[in-house]
Amino acid sequence: MKEFPLWQEVQADLEAVEAELLRQVEAPDPILTQAARHLVQAGGKRLRPAFAILAAKCCGAPREQILPLAVALEMIHMATLVHDDVIDASPVRRGRPTVWARWGKELSLHTGDYLFARALLLVAAYDDPRIPSILASTSVKMVQGELYQLAGAFDIGVTLRDYLKRIYRKTALLIAASCQLGAIAAGASENLIGSLYRYGRNLGMAFQITDDVLDMAAEPEKLGKPIGSDLRQGVITLPAIYALRFSPKKQKLACLLAKRDKTSMEIQEVIDLIKNCGGIDYSLGLAERYLAKARQHVLALPPGRARDILVGLTYFVRTRGI
Amino acid sequence: MKEFPLWQEVQADLEAVEAELLRQVEAPDPILTQAARHLVQAGGKRLRPAFAILAAKCCGAPREQILPLAVALEMIHMATLVHDDVIDASPVRRGRPTVWARWGKELSLHTGDYLFARALLLVAAYDDPRIPSILASTSVKMVQGELYQLAGAFDIGVTLRDYLKRIYRKTALLIAASCQLGAIAAGASENLIGSLYRYGRNLGMAFQITDDVLDMAAEPEKLGKPIGSDLRQGVITLPAIYALRFSPKKQKLACLLAKRDKTSMEIQEVIDLIKNCGGIDYSLGLAERYLAKARQHVLALPPGRARDILVGLTYFVRTRGI
Repeated sequence: MKEFPLWQEVQADLEAVEAELLRQVEAPDPILTQAARHLVQAGGKRLRPAFAILAAKCCGAPREQILPLAVALEMIHMATLVHDDVIDASPVRRGRPTVWARWGKELSLHTGDYLFARALLLVAAYDDPRIPSILASTSVKMVQGELYQLAGAFDIGVTLRDYLKRIYRKTALLIAASCQLGAIAAGASENLIGSLYRYGRNLGMAFQITDDVLDMAAEPEKLGKPIGSDLRQGVITLPAIYALRFSPKKQKLACLLAKRDKTSMEIQEVIDLIKNCGGIDYSLGLAERYLAKARQHVLALPPGRARDILVGLTYFVRTRGI
Repeated sequence: MKEFPLWQEVQADLEAVEAELLRQVEAPDPILTQAARHLVQAGGKRLRPAFAILAAKCCGAPREQILPLAVALEMIHMATLVHDDVIDASPVRRGRPTVWARWGKELSLHTGDYLFARALLLVAAYDDPRIPSILASTSVKMVQGELYQLAGAFDIGVTLRDYLKRIYRKTALLIAASCQLGAIAAGASENLIGSLYRYGRNLGMAFQITDDVLDMAAEPEKLGKPIGSDLRQGVITLPAIYALRFSPKKQKLACLLAKRDKTSMEIQEVIDLIKNCGGIDYSLGLAERYLAKARQHVLALPPGRARDILVGLTYFVRTRGI
């Protein structure tokens, strides 16, 4: 996010998040602490805490009031990542060995459960009963999103509608909840809460679409993992769904997408077929439409520095890494 | 629990729990629903819901008030079982194939996460902020208990203190929380809440000790799984800890306990060594002391049918299955 000029204004907030994250993952068990700390130190953009803090600031609340919630949101996100790594058997994430690769499935599974429970404990300090309730229902739906992905693997019959439903649950929902909960913890009005939720949902959709594009079109060094990992795992994303319909070689593409254990050459072939028929451009165009909607919702908020940053992010998501 | 004469008085409550459990695990995803339903239908004693309902009845609340909480407690328990089965790679639980054996690790992992999140969503309907907070802190400590077990596997240096700390977190804590939360949801006084918590904690300790004894001394048909599974997994339980100190053949026993991949004959040899030096009797004696303490705490409650059943359970735990 260093390329995003307004991000430096969130730096102090994110440093506070980082310190609190490290403090919160301390456990009486040394291995658990080590694994959780490894996860924290692997880094990440801390988007969810940033959204919660910015949303709260838009509603006039200071960072301190939001910090436990912001940290809890990142812990829930980390819990899903560490469980995903068990499922995908991923050796590397963000250029570092995963907890799964380093400590095995037992500890990864427990670390995920632990981070999730610690996050809930952290938000239990807020009086508002909407907070644990929204976090629980968000988590229920996120698991459902993971299952859609599992059930739809290598399924070339997946529709645009299936895809949008899946990425909403997998990604957009927690970003939307981060904005919404930031506003709730700030004691904002229903109107403001609603606008921030819709901002987060639209931005989250655009974020995941861009992520799915990057998996095919990014420079591998910037991505921190090999290109085409979705294709390897049989996850059919938007550019592929578009190309399955509009590529002049759609039969060939369908066979390749449905094939398990693709070679590197086959992965490259799939990517070329998708690029050549405009699958990447179409996907970025759809992301752009979500970003325009996000912008529209954020402009309903009171003007100020926090709002400027939220607006700025809608421009940044579009261009990162490509 | 059919052998426990007072259990029939809880039958109507537990049937309501069963119906609600099946209703709650319904998910939009058919495989997830199937897996969760498989888990529910695999049965179980539903001890945690029973304790919550009985505790609430002791405090004068009707079943309806407690039902969502009772169901949530069983779902949290089921979530830990399904994750345990992934870790232990258990093919069978209660005489039926596990979710892991039938659907694999991906779905088991998601089913556990799903049940836990659904449970939290269910209790979010209660106004009292103590309820989600106690559930979250209980879950944090339960994960820590699992890790103690993992870290202490095949470790013959494990002490009585380590063991008690582990079973407290692994088992007693959720039973104690069930009693405590039943009282809280019933709007009981701090005094009553405290007595019920202590009853549950002591009963839970006795319950786990008896369970650990049963793993060595039960008839396999009654147990629903092969005998000696703790020994096979390197979990050093109370009878073994006693025997490591007092058996005349403690050297031999230590070598066998620390050995991985024991043969069936070696398992039988370990059990015989433990039995011969009085390890089973000692453990049952300690369980009896916890039960006496539990009884003492329950007698501080207002007299009535619910209290009678809680008292009755302290006699039943001692004798089940042996």
